[in-house]
Amino acid sequence: MRRIGVFTSGGDAPGMNAAIRAVVRQAYALGIEVIGIRRGYAGMILGEMVPLGVRDVANILQRGGTILLTARSQDFLTPEGRAKAAKKLLEAGIEGLVAIGGDGTFRGAMRLIEEHRIPVVGVPGTIDNDLYGTDYTIGFDTAVNTALEAIDRIRDTAASHERVFFIEVMGRNAGFIALDVGLAGGAEVIAVPEEPVDPEAIAEGLLESQRRGKTSSIVVVAEGAYPGGAAGLLAAIQEHVAVEARVTVLGHIQRGGSPTAKDRILASRLGAAAVEALAAGTSGVMVGEVEGEVELTPLKEAVERRKDINRSLLSLSRVLAL
Amino acid sequence: MRRIGVFTSGGDAPGMNAAIRAVVRQAYALGIEVIGIRRGYAGMILGEMVPLGVRDVANILQRGGTILLTARSQDFLTPEGRAKAAKKLLEAGIEGLVAIGGDGTFRGAMRLIEEHRIPVVGVPGTIDNDLYGTDYTIGFDTAVNTALEAIDRIRDTAASHERVFFIEVMGRNAGFIALDVGLAGGAEVIAVPEEPVDPEAIAEGLLESQRRGKTSSIVVVAEGAYPGGAAGLLAAIQEHVAVEARVTVLGHIQRGGSPTAKDRILASRLGAAAVEALAAGTSGVMVGEVEGEVELTPLKEAVERRKDINRSLLSLSRVLAL
Amino acid sequence: MRRIGVFTSGGDAPGMNAAIRAVVRQAYALGIEVIGIRRGYAGMILGEMVPLGVRDVANILQRGGTILLTARSQDFLTPEGRAKAAKKLLEAGIEGLVAIGGDGTFRGAMRLIEEHRIPVVGVPGTIDNDLYGTDYTIGFDTAVNTALEAIDRIRDTAASHERVFFIEVMGRNAGFIALDVGLAGGAEVIAVPEEPVDPEAIAEGLLESQRRGKTSSIVVVAEGAYPGGAAGLLAAIQEHVAVEARVTVLGHIQRGGSPTAKDRILASRLGAAAVEALAAGTSGVMVGEVEGEVELTPLKEAVERRKDINRSLLSLSRVLAL
Amino acid sequence: MRRIGVFTSGGDAPGMNAAIRAVVRQAYALGIEVIGIRRGYAGMILGEMVPLGVRDVANILQRGGTILLTARSQDFLTPEGRAKAAKKLLEAGIEGLVAIGGDGTFRGAMRLIEEHRIPVVGVPGTIDNDLYGTDYTIGFDTAVNTALEAIDRIRDTAASHERVFFIEVMGRNAGFIALDVGLAGGAEVIAVPEEPVDPEAIAEGLLESQRRGKTSSIVVVAEGAYPGGAAGLLAAIQEHVAVEARVTVLGHIQRGGSPTAKDRILASRLGAAAVEALAAGTSGVMVGEVEGEVELTPLKEAVERRKDINRSLLSLSRVLAL
Repeated sequence: MRRIGVFTSGGDAPGMNAAIRAVVRQAYALGIEVIGIRRGYAGMILGEMVPLGVRDVANILQRGGTILLTARSQDFLTPEGRAKAAKKLLEAGIEGLVAIGGDGTFRGAMRLIEEHRIPVVGVPGTIDNDLYGTDYTIGFDTAVNTALEAIDRIRDTAASHERVFFIEVMGRNAGFIALDVGLAGGAEVIAVPEEPVDPEAIAEGLLESQRRGKTSSIVVVAEGAYPGGAAGLLAAIQEHVAVEARVTVLGHIQRGGSPTAKDRILASRLGAAAVEALAAGTSGVMVGEVEGEVELTPLKEAVERRKDINRSLLSLSRVLAL
Repeated sequence: MRRIGVFTSGGDAPGMNAAIRAVVRQAYALGIEVIGIRRGYAGMILGEMVPLGVRDVANILQRGGTILLTARSQDFLTPEGRAKAAKKLLEAGIEGLVAIGGDGTFRGAMRLIEEHRIPVVGVPGTIDNDLYGTDYTIGFDTAVNTALEAIDRIRDTAASHERVFFIEVMGRNAGFIALDVGLAGGAEVIAVPEEPVDPEAIAEGLLESQRRGKTSSIVVVAEGAYPGGAAGLLAAIQEHVAVEARVTVLGHIQRGGSPTAKDRILASRLGAAAVEALAAGTSGVMVGEVEGEVELTPLKEAVERRKDINRSLLSLSRVLAL
Repeated sequence: MRRIGVFTSGGDAPGMNAAIRAVVRQAYALGIEVIGIRRGYAGMILGEMVPLGVRDVANILQRGGTILLTARSQDFLTPEGRAKAAKKLLEAGIEGLVAIGGDGTFRGAMRLIEEHRIPVVGVPGTIDNDLYGTDYTIGFDTAVNTALEAIDRIRDTAASHERVFFIEVMGRNAGFIALDVGLAGGAEVIAVPEEPVDPEAIAEGLLESQRRGKTSSIVVVAEGAYPGGAAGLLAAIQEHVAVEARVTVLGHIQRGGSPTAKDRILASRLGAAAVEALAAGTSGVMVGEVEGEVELTPLKEAVERRKDINRSLLSLSRVLAL
Repeated sequence: MRRIGVFTSGGDAPGMNAAIRAVVRQAYALGIEVIGIRRGYAGMILGEMVPLGVRDVANILQRGGTILLTARSQDFLTPEGRAKAAKKLLEAGIEGLVAIGGDGTFRGAMRLIEEHRIPVVGVPGTIDNDLYGTDYTIGFDTAVNTALEAIDRIRDTAASHERVFFIEVMGRNAGFIALDVGLAGGAEVIAVPEEPVDPEAIAEGLLESQRRGKTSSIVVVAEGAYPGGAAGLLAAIQEHVAVEARVTVLGHIQRGGSPTAKDRILASRLGAAAVEALAAGTSGVMVGEVEGEVELTPLKEAVERRKDINRSLLSLSRVLAL
């Protein structure tokens, strides 16, 4: 393999740049050229490509976002769009791809492999941590710490005003962020999509904790845990009891910022491993870190198998939030 | 004067604890005892008081929120409520008050002085910076930097996805936060309550900046700049042009967190000055910092006179946001 | 078991408070009383004990340092000292101990078990990560991120002035912090105690990277990697080549600060697990997290067995620091 | 004026990039071209120049360091060196200069004006805040907050171990950083070059505060306050009393990092004002912010007149550090 392409796709995640850097430098060490494809699959179809040398990725390790930009592509969802993309890759002499993104990215990659025999190795870059085959995805640790810092701030106000706050964090289908942020932030209640959410029980719990002398409370809600997110859950609770509470939706601040050490190391490791896998002739897999070791998982499994939250941590959060 | 009371009231602001610490320690240096009144005017009516010694305020300088708690009080809005409060102060031997808060706090203080002859000196503690008689209020600098950090994060995503973001910051009646955050964050547009906001002109500006090659933009909106805040403004703009944009409401994270150096110094200075003013027999004034010097302003003026934003900075922001 | 004691000892680490909170609240859930012993073994000998209820540990989860204080004790190194400590524990009705600290702490605990039959379970609280039986120690993740933030700052200056910086991080016997910080910070060279450090080779490497067009470099040095630490290593290098460089010793800032999400979760989990282990009649073990699961390791092994750094990460850092 | 040059020189300071951006965009608004001169006077002599358009300064507002790099130049100290520099400027069609830096930078500029009639306007960019004619220099607020964050961390350890810490901050000739950091950080003692430092009195003070029940203390020392800095002062104190203490030198971390809101606004304002001044035909002045307004001060005065620290804040720090 003499030339590979790298791109980022889907929602951006802190650490994507660290992964790009690792791809470029590991490839250089193996004598492989790297072409950066801008704007994900949309740019691939349009042939938006730039050569990436070792100096081009200097000083990006610590930056949030992605220097290759990202976009969603309707065209790539059609066979015609994918054929165009494959043609552009062929013209550019690209013999393999490193795809950095989440499940949408990997589904696209699977089609590209299937229909056009282009080798692709995936790197899990998404703050949601909802990919099977890796203990953590790139960006998750940063997103959790960013949300945690926000909760620490809100707790100052919650404590001073003796109020209840409902804080919505990202996670449409997965409660990973909510669980870690809630446990680390000392939340009284953590609502995740993986578990039934019972407004009445939460109402009872909040009243009970007031009776025990707790004057302020934090409820962390994954956006997909209840219809309408944190605001929806609060409204449902208020049908049962007259709890006064404020709602804060953390929103896009969770996506940005300089990546944590953990995310930079994970991204460095997986970016390099992806190049090694490609160079070794592997395709159709995602590189992940499982119990401290780099492992390869078929893209199909990474996308389709369900990674569950650690339910013992959810129980622990209830014990600790007395 | 042998014994004074100190309390925080209204919305909490980072640096209130630094001000409490300064009150206690400056009073100690002058041989005056300090009683902390908890939960603002509500606690005053109920007689919720604790003696505060120099060690009681150790290690709070760097903490957000207020150790004395804060609350809003309906009772205090009535003459009966205020009479009860005055009685409790008398019983506790409190000969003067340091009131830390914003305009609601000071209006209450003015009544207390008028109706019950209790000397009060105000300390401007509010993130909104909307008090006349001080260049900055305690908490403003921290709130601006917190919002700025959030905007820096969002810009990562805005730049990676080449999107427009509308970010709502605090400020119902005043654009101080929006202006500073917008200028420091490189916002393309800053919408403040002090200036007419023209959705059509903003729409034009965003299109124009896209034509000039700018692929992402940040619009900072003070919550009171337009009906419905950032979301309302975006909707109004979308009636003119089909601009795609995301909305983020920063909300309560702007109130919390460890105060900046500026806020700690300002709070230390004004807390100490308030005690000195009280001890010197002054009442009915707010201590503020004007052009680097401590100044006293009648509470009535502090509350009623309008402090304007620096319009030259608003013009500057337009020049710089090319 | 009806009453247990908890204490922190040795160097403080961020997350110790989170562990104390978890001990107290998990014990409460099991119907066990908790006594906090202040100032580690020194306070144990003097009987410095305070009951800790669930509300006493409210609002400490996010705080650096340790509310129970920590100290080193010469007395406890003698049999007489330990006998006094055991007597105080007996008098206080303490039937078991949770010891939060590092290897010195655990060696003390082993003696206490041996000589006085007092059940002890250890919790790994040290920024150094040098304990066998847990993938990470409490405080390590925070220390790494704090050091990383410092390096990001220094890189601004290094890049602007096109200079080489030698940065010394903590780690007398172990290179865990240096390795993670170096990899995450994009260091050109990482010097750890686990590997021979060759000044001449480093000198060559720095010159080589200048030849390749790199204008600034960061060298991360664990304090125990070379005699004299970073300054010693630089001096040795300067005997070979005339490289101009600045030295910064990060020092004690690495110990403090609000713990990261990871450290708070780890501390919460291990604090709770320690109480469960004690309650189940276990003693002489350290609770740790290995590959995501809580595991018990004999204190003797935790202290004596060598946990090695991940050498593949060291190789990776060389590939990436082109 | 149709074309101007801009450069940064001397020690880098956070906000220099914000100033460069403002220079470029304000110039664009006035129809003036901007040439960036790299590596300060050294690069000027070598003719290292790059045109800077409005898009070239996008996304640098929030970055520490300086994209134009900085260096010290021996050559420029000679008339021959300056003649070469002037020739390069002439060749490049540069009709005026914006010089961003500190007193060394301005002394160089004065020579250039005198000997070669090249108009220069200075922008105060230095973390030291030691220039007359501006209340604050660009970078000072960031440096103070960075040092403060470090002190907050160290205080965690100081409090947990009940220790005294001597922390050295930047400031060879001026105590601005030490004073603000010390006051905001709750330091027991602040040693600045502007005031005599008496080791014996400090020793007495530390003992006295221990007698009053204070178990940990922070002493902030400007590097130029005492021979040997913080370590030298501690040694001198230890000749009087046996105080145990740790020393931490904050060093270069104080120079880097993303600028605070204050520094970005100040830099934006002064960068723009410098261009306006040049365009209006002014030369030989520094733009500064005095009591909220932009003011011009002759470079000679900026460099030679002494700006004093606010001694009332020093007294205040003593009252508050009980």
